[in-house]
Amino acid sequence: MTGPKPLSNLMEQFQKLPGIGRKTAERLAFHILKADIKDVARFAESLRDVKEKVSLCSVCGSLTELDPCAICSDPERNKGVICVVEEPHDVFAVERIGEFTGVYHVLMGVLSPLDGVGPEELRIGELVARVEKGGVDEVIVATNPNVEGEATGMYIAKILGGKNTLVTRIARGLPMGGDLEYADEVTLSKAIIGRLKM
Amino acid sequence: MTGPKPLSNLMEQFQKLPGIGRKTAERLAFHILKADIKDVARFAESLRDVKEKVSLCSVCGSLTELDPCAICSDPERNKGVICVVEEPHDVFAVERIGEFTGVYHVLMGVLSPLDGVGPEELRIGELVARVEKGGVDEVIVATNPNVEGEATGMYIAKILGGKNTLVTRIARGLPMGGDLEYADEVTLSKAIIGRLKM
Repeated sequence: MTGPKPLSNLMEQFQKLPGIGRKTAERLAFHILKADIKDVARFAESLRDVKEKVSLCSVCGSLTELDPCAICSDPERNKGVICVVEEPHDVFAVERIGEFTGVYHVLMGVLSPLDGVGPEELRIGELVARVEKGGVDEVIVATNPNVEGEATGMYIAKILGGKNTLVTRIARGLPMGGDLEYADEVTLSKAIIGRLKM
Repeated sequence: MTGPKPLSNLMEQFQKLPGIGRKTAERLAFHILKADIKDVARFAESLRDVKEKVSLCSVCGSLTELDPCAICSDPERNKGVICVVEEPHDVFAVERIGEFTGVYHVLMGVLSPLDGVGPEELRIGELVARVEKGGVDEVIVATNPNVEGEATGMYIAKILGGKNTLVTRIARGLPMGGDLEYADEVTLSKAIIGRLKM
């Protein structure tokens, strides 16, 4: 027995979330039980809201309430620079630094032949169409620095080659606060290859 | 910017839960975004259900959908033995071992003069009333083995003294799988005092 049915139901629901085990689910369910009824109603409401009100921008593919998204429809943003990322949440990571003034293009994944993800499964065709429409000076490939991300970046560079648009890749090197001694060989090698004049 | 408003709302809600920080809240909110809409509706539903359908048993104070609870209204349970615990979730902990056949009494806390919790704030009066109604052979004090739990246990033993009911305390000693070498002095002392004939 784990208590009344609604309580064990809620524990089950919490346990379905990533990284939440039985003990944590129990603790969270008891927290809800003691929480203010208004707060709980707000929580339930915001769960539904996310599913009902958030969709993908038809231009860049990032998460938005309105279509096109706030970034794509912002006249201040430079439409000539497109930052290509893997997932919608990567857009928020770049936005948080507050320095990028261009627009985005979300691929919705990376090339991964073993998982059956080819170029058709990604939003690469849409990227090519955006570039072919003209006015795009630079495409910054900001996929993750791992095997799939690098391969996807390479594929994009190849397919956009000869389209009169500069394709760049974000720098790979030692993270700030990192330590040369503990850096892996590949990162260190990338850091040396990508060195800049001081 | 952390994305569309409904998404950042949900992150905020997750962050209010105990032990959930910004990064985890973000991960959970994105999980909800990708989850099946039916699953999310069920989650929202179970949040409300817990607040609306779960209440406290008027006899023992444990969590229940019906009043009195399943344990108090079970004719198979021995009403002559009452296990006194601090919180409703302690009932589930004892129930999980599946060996206790008596009934419960939840105190809803422990004596803690510094926090302004005296006997009137706890369900001690209700316990005395249950014992005075008669038919109670034994009261097992299963408060937590810490300063407040011990003090509360002692207070209950004193107030029930002379009421013709045996008051017992759960054993304090080395936990199973524990190690004599690493046991603290108080636990080891309790283990020796509480030794049993083999």
